[in-house]
Amino acid sequence: MTESKFHGVIPPVVIPLTAERTLDLEALERSINRMIDAGVDGLFFLGSSGEVAFLTDAQRYHVLQEAVAMVHGRVPVLAGIIDMETLRVVDQAKRATGYGVDGLVATAPFYALGGPKETERHFRAIREQTDLPLFAYDLPVCVHTKLDPTMLVRLGEDGVIQGVKDSSGDDVSFRWLCLENGDAGHPLQVFTGHEVCVDGAYMAGADGSVPGLANIDPYSYVEQWKAFQAGDWEKVRQIQDHLARLMFVTRVVKATVGFGAGVGAFKTALWQMGVFNTNQMREPVQALEGEDVAAIRAVLEQNGMM
Amino acid sequence: MTESKFHGVIPPVVIPLTAERTLDLEALERSINRMIDAGVDGLFFLGSSGEVAFLTDAQRYHVLQEAVAMVHGRVPVLAGIIDMETLRVVDQAKRATGYGVDGLVATAPFYALGGPKETERHFRAIREQTDLPLFAYDLPVCVHTKLDPTMLVRLGEDGVIQGVKDSSGDDVSFRWLCLENGDAGHPLQVFTGHEVCVDGAYMAGADGSVPGLANIDPYSYVEQWKAFQAGDWEKVRQIQDHLARLMFVTRVVKATVGFGAGVGAFKTALWQMGVFNTNQMREPVQALEGEDVAAIRAVLEQNGMM
Amino acid sequence: MTESKFHGVIPPVVIPLTAERTLDLEALERSINRMIDAGVDGLFFLGSSGEVAFLTDAQRYHVLQEAVAMVHGRVPVLAGIIDMETLRVVDQAKRATGYGVDGLVATAPFYALGGPKETERHFRAIREQTDLPLFAYDLPVCVHTKLDPTMLVRLGEDGVIQGVKDSSGDDVSFRWLCLENGDAGHPLQVFTGHEVCVDGAYMAGADGSVPGLANIDPYSYVEQWKAFQAGDWEKVRQIQDHLARLMFVTRVVKATVGFGAGVGAFKTALWQMGVFNTNQMREPVQALEGEDVAAIRAVLEQNGMM
Amino acid sequence: MTESKFHGVIPPVVIPLTAERTLDLEALERSINRMIDAGVDGLFFLGSSGEVAFLTDAQRYHVLQEAVAMVHGRVPVLAGIIDMETLRVVDQAKRATGYGVDGLVATAPFYALGGPKETERHFRAIREQTDLPLFAYDLPVCVHTKLDPTMLVRLGEDGVIQGVKDSSGDDVSFRWLCLENGDAGHPLQVFTGHEVCVDGAYMAGADGSVPGLANIDPYSYVEQWKAFQAGDWEKVRQIQDHLARLMFVTRVVKATVGFGAGVGAFKTALWQMGVFNTNQMREPVQALEGEDVAAIRAVLEQNGMM
Repeated sequence: MTESKFHGVIPPVVIPLTAERTLDLEALERSINRMIDAGVDGLFFLGSSGEVAFLTDAQRYHVLQEAVAMVHGRVPVLAGIIDMETLRVVDQAKRATGYGVDGLVATAPFYALGGPKETERHFRAIREQTDLPLFAYDLPVCVHTKLDPTMLVRLGEDGVIQGVKDSSGDDVSFRWLCLENGDAGHPLQVFTGHEVCVDGAYMAGADGSVPGLANIDPYSYVEQWKAFQAGDWEKVRQIQDHLARLMFVTRVVKATVGFGAGVGAFKTALWQMGVFNTNQMREPVQALEGEDVAAIRAVLEQNGMM
Repeated sequence: MTESKFHGVIPPVVIPLTAERTLDLEALERSINRMIDAGVDGLFFLGSSGEVAFLTDAQRYHVLQEAVAMVHGRVPVLAGIIDMETLRVVDQAKRATGYGVDGLVATAPFYALGGPKETERHFRAIREQTDLPLFAYDLPVCVHTKLDPTMLVRLGEDGVIQGVKDSSGDDVSFRWLCLENGDAGHPLQVFTGHEVCVDGAYMAGADGSVPGLANIDPYSYVEQWKAFQAGDWEKVRQIQDHLARLMFVTRVVKATVGFGAGVGAFKTALWQMGVFNTNQMREPVQALEGEDVAAIRAVLEQNGMM
Repeated sequence: MTESKFHGVIPPVVIPLTAERTLDLEALERSINRMIDAGVDGLFFLGSSGEVAFLTDAQRYHVLQEAVAMVHGRVPVLAGIIDMETLRVVDQAKRATGYGVDGLVATAPFYALGGPKETERHFRAIREQTDLPLFAYDLPVCVHTKLDPTMLVRLGEDGVIQGVKDSSGDDVSFRWLCLENGDAGHPLQVFTGHEVCVDGAYMAGADGSVPGLANIDPYSYVEQWKAFQAGDWEKVRQIQDHLARLMFVTRVVKATVGFGAGVGAFKTALWQMGVFNTNQMREPVQALEGEDVAAIRAVLEQNGMM
Repeated sequence: MTESKFHGVIPPVVIPLTAERTLDLEALERSINRMIDAGVDGLFFLGSSGEVAFLTDAQRYHVLQEAVAMVHGRVPVLAGIIDMETLRVVDQAKRATGYGVDGLVATAPFYALGGPKETERHFRAIREQTDLPLFAYDLPVCVHTKLDPTMLVRLGEDGVIQGVKDSSGDDVSFRWLCLENGDAGHPLQVFTGHEVCVDGAYMAGADGSVPGLANIDPYSYVEQWKAFQAGDWEKVRQIQDHLARLMFVTRVVKATVGFGAGVGAFKTALWQMGVFNTNQMREPVQALEGEDVAAIRAVLEQNGMM
């Protein structure tokens, strides 16, 4: 592994709101401190778990301004620069850079799809107009394009990207990415965005993980990373079984589907655990209620989280 | 049909660029005037054909500022307020409203998908924070959600939306939308975004069409609309056959796929016809070249466009 | 139009069962006679609406044996030879041919997908081993491959296929198929499998339709075909509006989704109208019950069918 | 783990053909013996890798008859009973049972899709009419339905199925299946159908694997299974890296896509290695040629297979 500042557990930060849908700074600081105290190796703001798609630009940079100040250099900060196509992403990159983050995370283009030529040119064009370390975010469930491992390694060798956050759910492609990256001299830091199969990603040779569930249980993901570093695979696996069960918080939701069930469940869990003050969501998503809250609470109790 | 100011042929305007990828105001004015002189009933800016996804906000509102001035009230102007989720769309709506447009066009949320509850709430939340006539843009190929006809008519009856631009390619759903809209007293103005089967949409009872191909041949779409108003179905059909053949400009492209082949072909045709000065595209898309240009030119010649 | 024996309205026949899930010959004969008396131009057995996927080979050829005898030459009979890949389809073709049908209907390969080369070879291989007129059945919802219009016309020119049943729901592709077929001298008889937009298909130049809904209302589809032949487009359109509303029988089902809602609704309607004795379905699908039956009955009543 | 006869490495057998597309019995016996000598724990015939979709029933049972005789009780034999819907699958089950196999493998219904109720009923109906151990084959790429882990465990507890072959590529769902199966007392034997991430599946608690690539390198899969049984995770992982690289045989194919590239590459590799006499495929698929053969050979050489 290279001497990159990016490795290990880097949670995508879930953002707490007040009941009136304004940023809850008190809860945000509590959650950030809780994760840093648990030993995470970095924090990723303005990712999908951070509701980036739901925030106006003003709201995005309010979050980033406060977050960078709260982190205060204790761990590296990554910022999502999520937007539809190249020029809009570059615009987000320029703004995020101004807030003093340590790295940028960009997806493939979305809304108006092209082919592989346009995807590769997209990342090269971002690089030409920015300076910070750049991570490619492979997220076909949102952007409807799968990033090709061979292209990613080529972009790494050319210095266009410094890493990959793979949330594609395609563990075959992830394995091949790790192998091809190794053959090329490890130009990329490769992270899995999976919560449930991080052990498999470590077996494949991942440089770290970016699990949304680490907002709820950062301790276990950090302990798992240390066990992997120590070669204690049985421990890696046992911790993963615990975390896979904890992820049931997202499976027990009945009231809605998609984003509101996923990040909605994370917020509800953090609220029930006392880290957040509410489980409020951004428009047009509603906070989970009633039986869904009770079901999430039951999963937390069954897994020793409260 | 109601007395709405929105009906008939409302092309989504393709935006010309210089070779250096700046806005080509001369060509834009030529193209706008050409369509208005042909008799179109409105113009739609910042739609997919207008490369809205590729423009920074600064570029979007530069286009809108110039376009509104060029149209100068001769026909109604619709503006796309295309963004990922509700609050970002509201932000775009507020800006577009300031430029003096006559109506707004919004898609379902994208990037972070929800279920039908979130989609319906999305349009209601936009309405609560805006005043102009609002059109729902049904475009699953870009946003990966199909709008339900029954929901659309309910939104129409509640005054949330005033119309629909249906680019879903689902003509069964379109028929049902027209029938349910009629049963409810026609609260919605319903437009098809299809280029190739506008005759079928008129049979179904459409209030008009929004065909990107009308940038190339506005005369035929206007003539087809007049034939429909006069009940001359044979003429409607014959014109459609001509336009279906003209749409082959997008079928003959070999160099790429997706947006670059579609809007890229439109730009190349307009360039070959002398309406545009180049066929330049926005990053990360490249302008078509060589054999693709020749093939598009051949289609134009075979269909009497040059 | 050529002098082909295949043109006009050719319903895919829905097959009645007894409560014990055996073939209900009495009801089958009643339904066949009802459609022939209404003036249909042919009948298509062992299609999707005929539950072909659910029948063992023994059951398939039992249906075909009885059906051919019941039709007794009054109209041409098409038989579906639906199976996974080429050799299995050829096997079905050989058996169907033995029962004295007039034409065969085959889909693209499914289960194990290939690319366009394999799809084209599939139809050529079937042709090499069979003699009857062969129709390509374009049904991506079941087989997950869309047939390319240019390939279909090439197969027509080479005498491989004599026609197409297009149930793709892609009316743009259908238009292009009709245009390319016309340019090539009309080697193919082109049918739409749509129930709801047959008027648009006639505008595009279809040679006929294969609507499952014609089991319920064969009279209107026949009348619509005659109006099309007479150039009376207003009548074509008005009949289509009636039929589009009648198709709501499939939209009101709540208990299940997919095949059981679609063909299940057709069977329930035919049962309520007295054409069928039950609405029984094949394993693993259950017959519709309770509120679904009531809702279907309401649609029939609102549309003058009972 | 229970005392089931099904566990460990059970390759889905690739079937050699002569140049004339007849069954190559000599090569089949050589390949079967090679895998059994390597220590595999069972063999699976008439799976996707065995071209089951391409075989007529006569051809299927010819394969099964010969295969069962060749295996001659040395290892348990599973047989695919792959067909569109329930009754057809039952028909296949009855025939396969007559040939003396030890277990049956069935997918969800395909071609005519239903919802979860129909999928569950499908497996229950098969059970009611058969006696042998039954495995659910989760293969959404072919059947377009994902099997729900909770449903599978319920079917296991009810004695409907005895195991699962998971080729879904969804490692999150696989993890949850293993956890839920464990909580229920391990009613199911759970196998991964992945070639490339078997180590991750073992971490999740799989009872074995069904890798098509084991036709090419059965030794490594057997060695990996033994290392897993011994808790030697580093060895499990290193072997997996070798096998992941060997799977590049399917990535280097340029001439086609889908099945012809996947199983076509396996056959080509086995031919180059001298296990098969040809790389012939079933209609409508063509054998790989020229550069594709050379590229596959290069992968074999780079990975010490020749």
